Amino acid sequence: MSKKPEPISGFPEFLPAEQIAFNRVIDTIRRNYELTGAVPIETPAVERTSTLLAKGGNEKEIYGLRRLNADDSEAKDLALHFDLTVPLARYVAQHQGKLIFPFRRYQIQPVWRGERAQSGRYRQFYQCDIDVIGENELSLLNDAEMPYVIYQIFRELNIGKFLIRINNRKVLKGFLASFGLDEKIIKRAIHIIDSIEKVDEKKTKEDLIGLGVSAIQSNELLDFFTMTGSTDEILSFLNKKPINETYQEGVQELKQVVDAIRNLGIPDEYFTVDLKIARGLDYYTGTVYETKLINHPEIGSICSGGRYDELTGLFTEKKYPGVGISIGLTRLLPLLLDAGVIPVPPPTVAPVLVTVLQPEHINKYLNIAATLRASGINTEIFLENKKLNAQMKYANKKGFKLVIVAGDDEFNRSIVMVKNMQTGEQLEVVESDINIYIKDILNAIKC
Amino acid sequence: MSKKPEPISGFPEFLPAEQIAFNRVIDTIRRNYELTGAVPIETPAVERTSTLLAKGGNEKEIYGLRRLNADDSEAKDLALHFDLTVPLARYVAQHQGKLIFPFRRYQIQPVWRGERAQSGRYRQFYQCDIDVIGENELSLLNDAEMPYVIYQIFRELNIGKFLIRINNRKVLKGFLASFGLDEKIIKRAIHIIDSIEKVDEKKTKEDLIGLGVSAIQSNELLDFFTMTGSTDEILSFLNKKPINETYQEGVQELKQVVDAIRNLGIPDEYFTVDLKIARGLDYYTGTVYETKLINHPEIGSICSGGRYDELTGLFTEKKYPGVGISIGLTRLLPLLLDAGVIPVPPPTVAPVLVTVLQPEHINKYLNIAATLRASGINTEIFLENKKLNAQMKYANKKGFKLVIVAGDDEFNRSIVMVKNMQTGEQLEVVESDINIYIKDILNAIKC
Repeated sequence: MSKKPEPISGFPEFLPAEQIAFNRVIDTIRRNYELTGAVPIETPAVERTSTLLAKGGNEKEIYGLRRLNADDSEAKDLALHFDLTVPLARYVAQHQGKLIFPFRRYQIQPVWRGERAQSGRYRQFYQCDIDVIGENELSLLNDAEMPYVIYQIFRELNIGKFLIRINNRKVLKGFLASFGLDEKIIKRAIHIIDSIEKVDEKKTKEDLIGLGVSAIQSNELLDFFTMTGSTDEILSFLNKKPINETYQEGVQELKQVVDAIRNLGIPDEYFTVDLKIARGLDYYTGTVYETKLINHPEIGSICSGGRYDELTGLFTEKKYPGVGISIGLTRLLPLLLDAGVIPVPPPTVAPVLVTVLQPEHINKYLNIAATLRASGINTEIFLENKKLNAQMKYANKKGFKLVIVAGDDEFNRSIVMVKNMQTGEQLEVVESDINIYIKDILNAIKC
Repeated sequence: MSKKPEPISGFPEFLPAEQIAFNRVIDTIRRNYELTGAVPIETPAVERTSTLLAKGGNEKEIYGLRRLNADDSEAKDLALHFDLTVPLARYVAQHQGKLIFPFRRYQIQPVWRGERAQSGRYRQFYQCDIDVIGENELSLLNDAEMPYVIYQIFRELNIGKFLIRINNRKVLKGFLASFGLDEKIIKRAIHIIDSIEKVDEKKTKEDLIGLGVSAIQSNELLDFFTMTGSTDEILSFLNKKPINETYQEGVQELKQVVDAIRNLGIPDEYFTVDLKIARGLDYYTGTVYETKLINHPEIGSICSGGRYDELTGLFTEKKYPGVGISIGLTRLLPLLLDAGVIPVPPPTVAPVLVTVLQPEHINKYLNIAATLRASGINTEIFLENKKLNAQMKYANKKGFKLVIVAGDDEFNRSIVMVKNMQTGEQLEVVESDINIYIKDILNAIKC
């Protein structure tokens, strides 16, 4: 057999350049999650099937395990997790006595979904989650930490203007209840509101009327949920309507979260109260978030999440409320790269290549590389027996910033040549100070 | 249902402190892999079953996928990878036209093995692999880069004295062939040599005699493979015996690799030529490595690998020789933590906690935290409504280095109190310069 392997639909993998971009984004997310004190955890890819189904996971979307050609009994109750929330709930319930609450954790791992291949969906993709879990209760102020990390991450990623859209499910529910809708209908209404941006106004109104409200009421609802204005204008408008207790609680929560967001230093232009942000999941009970790129609305929400009353209901009797967000990076990164929002980096993590002009000086070349590496400069050595021409071609293809070339002439003068691959400029550098020079040149290029 | 979830045997997970330690080791490995210019890749957890079995994977050890309660046809040829070498071979064969050779790549991912639970083995564990793959050929000098990264990683991890043991399969094979052993017997002999340290001398001799050599020859073999001495003594001894071509090729390779290792700056005390290092896998064809901790031989090899002639034989007709090493971190880290070789860190990634003494000043506390974070200092805020006493208890439990406390008294004087949790010392710090002060204090603590 020597058939060229084919990709498996739904299981993406990157070439090195894209992988480098991916890892840099992961690093940025991780650093900013840790900036707020969140600790990392990682759960096994595998959970008990019963655990995954406990919270109503969709059986069809779950990949179970089986052992090839062996006794299956130990694998038959095992399956791959389809998100990081169910594993978090299981982790908290299992280790509750050993965790310190409030438990701020982040978790960056792939998840698996048994989607049909033809739907074009990913069957393995990364989720980057951060959540704060309280024991019995959790201060509302934590709801302001989530927009804070979103702001930090996407500012640092330099992806242009974005808007964190914040709402509170209590406002939604309270407002809908004031129309005489019961809980079941409210759930359906929330799904309609969640789709306002995806369908036209006429369809939304029809859907709302389908819930049993009048045409006038459907207009009123639509006006409310699509309200625009500054954050303070919207909050002050909401505050004037003493609709019911749930609604007022939601408005007060929104106000407090907005205050705290401002005190955490997020400029007003980066967030807004948006009453049509509903989030599909029934799971959320208070604050909800979505984030959009102003110049790339086609990408959809780049980060979303919210507050929930009960994380672990099915695994323990204790109450663990929480708030969190998730970034679906496997889906997001190719969109950002394709849109040019994030540039594709060159396929090297090393800025410097040491070439081997005369193999008899290999000890010199190895020494130079070791010296640079000892100064923390990622340095590759071209070790293959090729002409300098081929080595320079390699350097160009991989995108090294600096290439070091030296032979008898240079070594006799105790120097090496450093070629700046962007400008073509060649510099003579004293061999013994090479690490200092190269550091300076790299710093200058960066600026 | 509210039954406390039980761990699944063979699928380990860490509490936050251990996870922090784990991630730090991963970061160190990654940084040092990148120091040599290796690029990251990541392959999906899932490969085609036919791919995994192509190189003779053990069917019983492979976890296949199945879809719960759904049409299984799309999942039935899919399985979880059991190592990172087969996926690398498939990746290189699949993307060969798009990769730049020599292809230096590293890959840090979990792998899965369908081991019986009772054997106490891990069924999911991390492998941290680095390999350099050539197109048709690959310079022997790459074989020196592997001890270089091993040295850098374990030095930086500060795990005490270790020894990188280097051998060459050609020396082994050539020497064994000179006893008239054929290829099949040589394979068996290599497994015996690989076990020299695990069984007693008598057993080794018996095993060797079982191959068809005389008692005198078995002594001769054992003397050879257990030879001790300085690297140069052993090399010079080997060099004097012109046994056969394979043997001499191996000796020359060993010498070249040792020269290059020295030129890369690895002190002689950290590596040795050890003729009994054989590595079980038939896969290896030249240089082989194992690494042991001098003070913890019970931990076994902490890092091993070697040179292979053909990576992708089953997926493409082109020849891709390579050299690489692997660190099995899931197994290794708990051993290092248990042995006290790596200390268990406190369960926080933030050195600073901002307490909330008077909730009415919440805007101040949030400001302070935001200022510290803007200076890159990981900072947690205690947002729950608890007495200062409870907040200090939390700070102690999590192991923050510095805790910031301030109320009316302090704010009126434009200062905050900073408590050093290690010394108990309390310092008054000017509020507006807090980031500068805290940075200085943290730097001082580190030194």
